[in-house]
Amino acid sequence: MLEELKQKVFEANLLLPRNNLVVLTWGNVSEIDRESNLVVIKPSGVSYEKLRPEMMVVVNEKGEVVEGNLKPSVDTPTHLELYRQFKDIGGVAHTHSTWATIWAQAGRSIPCLGGTHADHFADEIPCTRALTKKEAESNMELNTGKVIVEAFKNLDYHEIPAVLEAFHGPFTWGKDSLEAVQNSIVLEEVAKMSYFTLELNPHAVMPEEIIKVRYLRKHGAQAYYGQSITL
Amino acid sequence: MLEELKQKVFEANLLLPRNNLVVLTWGNVSEIDRESNLVVIKPSGVSYEKLRPEMMVVVNEKGEVVEGNLKPSVDTPTHLELYRQFKDIGGVAHTHSTWATIWAQAGRSIPCLGGTHADHFADEIPCTRALTKKEAESNMELNTGKVIVEAFKNLDYHEIPAVLEAFHGPFTWGKDSLEAVQNSIVLEEVAKMSYFTLELNPHAVMPEEIIKVRYLRKHGAQAYYGQSITL
Amino acid sequence: MLEELKQKVFEANLLLPRNNLVVLTWGNVSEIDRESNLVVIKPSGVSYEKLRPEMMVVVNEKGEVVEGNLKPSVDTPTHLELYRQFKDIGGVAHTHSTWATIWAQAGRSIPCLGGTHADHFADEIPCTRALTKKEAESNMELNTGKVIVEAFKNLDYHEIPAVLEAFHGPFTWGKDSLEAVQNSIVLEEVAKMSYFTLELNPHAVMPEEIIKVRYLRKHGAQAYYGQSITL
Amino acid sequence: MLEELKQKVFEANLLLPRNNLVVLTWGNVSEIDRESNLVVIKPSGVSYEKLRPEMMVVVNEKGEVVEGNLKPSVDTPTHLELYRQFKDIGGVAHTHSTWATIWAQAGRSIPCLGGTHADHFADEIPCTRALTKKEAESNMELNTGKVIVEAFKNLDYHEIPAVLEAFHGPFTWGKDSLEAVQNSIVLEEVAKMSYFTLELNPHAVMPEEIIKVRYLRKHGAQAYYGQSITL
Repeated sequence: MLEELKQKVFEANLLLPRNNLVVLTWGNVSEIDRESNLVVIKPSGVSYEKLRPEMMVVVNEKGEVVEGNLKPSVDTPTHLELYRQFKDIGGVAHTHSTWATIWAQAGRSIPCLGGTHADHFADEIPCTRALTKKEAESNMELNTGKVIVEAFKNLDYHEIPAVLEAFHGPFTWGKDSLEAVQNSIVLEEVAKMSYFTLELNPHAVMPEEIIKVRYLRKHGAQAYYGQSITL
Repeated sequence: MLEELKQKVFEANLLLPRNNLVVLTWGNVSEIDRESNLVVIKPSGVSYEKLRPEMMVVVNEKGEVVEGNLKPSVDTPTHLELYRQFKDIGGVAHTHSTWATIWAQAGRSIPCLGGTHADHFADEIPCTRALTKKEAESNMELNTGKVIVEAFKNLDYHEIPAVLEAFHGPFTWGKDSLEAVQNSIVLEEVAKMSYFTLELNPHAVMPEEIIKVRYLRKHGAQAYYGQSITL
Repeated sequence: MLEELKQKVFEANLLLPRNNLVVLTWGNVSEIDRESNLVVIKPSGVSYEKLRPEMMVVVNEKGEVVEGNLKPSVDTPTHLELYRQFKDIGGVAHTHSTWATIWAQAGRSIPCLGGTHADHFADEIPCTRALTKKEAESNMELNTGKVIVEAFKNLDYHEIPAVLEAFHGPFTWGKDSLEAVQNSIVLEEVAKMSYFTLELNPHAVMPEEIIKVRYLRKHGAQAYYGQSITL
Repeated sequence: MLEELKQKVFEANLLLPRNNLVVLTWGNVSEIDRESNLVVIKPSGVSYEKLRPEMMVVVNEKGEVVEGNLKPSVDTPTHLELYRQFKDIGGVAHTHSTWATIWAQAGRSIPCLGGTHADHFADEIPCTRALTKKEAESNMELNTGKVIVEAFKNLDYHEIPAVLEAFHGPFTWGKDSLEAVQNSIVLEEVAKMSYFTLELNPHAVMPEEIIKVRYLRKHGAQAYYGQSITL
């Protein structure tokens, strides 16, 4: 079932170690099939060396395993909550990538300080509030999804396809699993750049209008970056 | 003798350079065979390129070479003291990995500031007191083991399988040599993250209850991370 | 047309990922054929894995595509403005390399603090002023070229073949595309070194006379670095 | 002439890029044949990809080329001065490795803050005074050697086989070219560790007696680190 999607999600997961976004078994990527409402996700605690396409786990919207011999990622309830609330995303990625995690642990949103950021995210990357004791002790992973959605109450998840969970690390999303991972790659780079930019100039602020122009160059209706044909 | 264990300890040692935890000949990993009370350990000062399984040295509990043509790691007395006092550990790893060593040189314990840390260590990673002049000048490596054990007088070495020796570097342990090395890998990553988290937010503190939930998710009796079958 | 040049520009572009100067599809390198006034440049948004010599785009001095099925880099107008105003340069490179971009985002020029810098650049690497709202909203990429030229009103672009565009990142140039990329490599290294040098010693200043001697050793009429024969 | 030594010096030079100590053509390693007083050294400005054993240049004590079609490294006069004054060294290495260069540019000696440093260097790594205008403008490379020797007036070059030239970068030495390069590798690592140790704890000081014990463990008459046989 969903063999093609399993292959795709498998490959998207392998991009995490190839881009130095994870160590050991950390991190996980999923993609949803919006027709059947089934989600394909990495199994829990399996090393990337041993990972095979057929090990990908298929779960339904309740998180029940529909196919696969392995347990899905413990973060599955977070992914499912994002698919439920962010209606038109197709893929979700979660890592403990060094610099994004540093901002998350500091409890700080990543300000937009340059073109690299503005080319991909229309504004700062928000950091969620911390989970309450009650939220942590019961259904932590589902509640993680809920505080992420809460952080986007006044934000557009299309324009900012990334978030930092306080004291934990980043989640990113996109139209599919590949785009979700690409957003993790960019997030890690801008997290590092923003950190040192502020060290070098604590008053660094990028003018709003340049952020807007750069973002729309790649993402607006008049976007002119990239090719209109597929290579 | 212990050929299988030599192969395993050899492979565990090779994980150190592959994970960028050592340069030149630094670092060493051992594993104990609790039945015979014999320990297999890396020979002293041999480069990882030249290292072969049959070069692994077998020592008894007094540190005497039982098999092997080479001298064992100079840190052998530290490993042996840990095996003596931490009754149910099976493997020990020692590195000079950059970030863990920086905390050790600064004489500071690594605070638990995020999920990456709490997933693996139940609390901060303690830094030992410095060796006294007397302890340094006579049996330094044995005394290194002793100050580590001293640092754990009120701590549970199962829950925190890592330590920083002041002015030197990290030691980690686990149920076997592989787990000891994995703990070195995680330690290095959290050492780096904690450093920059505090730079970004000197008041960063992770709530106790979230540390506990995250740690137990992976390590408690009700742990639900990973697979119950072996892959 | 210009098949040899396409091959050369293709190879120069590949040096960017090989030297860790770009992630994803970021960055672009071009070279001009001064006889025909045609410029060969990387296509927009194409990954370096998929890039092939025949995908290189040939544009004329107005930026019109003369040959190629793909759209040229969105930064083409910046390259063209540099070729127009810096009369004897042959190649231009643009990256978002981490440390050069950090200085650009901080809006600060990179001071010359050591021999590594002085061996390649005769003085500090200037950071441009920010684009005005009007400059950003209409022909941003052309205006980027103009503020770069403006920054060199009182500087010699031969002696300092590099610039930081505020809130964006570095552009470098040279006698051809290869030299432009080499200058990007050096720039990234000195950007990192200068950053940490100032952290370690905020009063670090390299004596003018040593800068001059070192620069002339490699670039003056009496330069004695390197070989007079081609290897 | 000296074909075996050329091969050895060639291989020692290649260790520089393999250990990430240089970019482009930077850096150079030499070894002296004390019987003939001839020195084999890397040619100037040749990339490591193109370097071949037969390109190594043989110079006499005056720096005159005795064999080879290429010009020797511009830093040759520095190497020769070190061979003249440090009577029993056999190899010299020079790099612009990032962290050692940062300390050199800051004009600061690298304090001994941990076992990694003390295992290899008996005390802090000194930074020379800056060249005077006159010293820079005439025979800069020879004068570089002289200020290095001056920095060791009250130091033992056997115990501290490394130095930082102010505003330039590190030079290291050893009994042969391989040991010189190994000292460059260690120097770069301790330069990075010392930097961040001081950031984390500006008052970090390693007790003198532990430095001494650790250094002697590897280098004293009673050294017990490593093997007595050659592998």
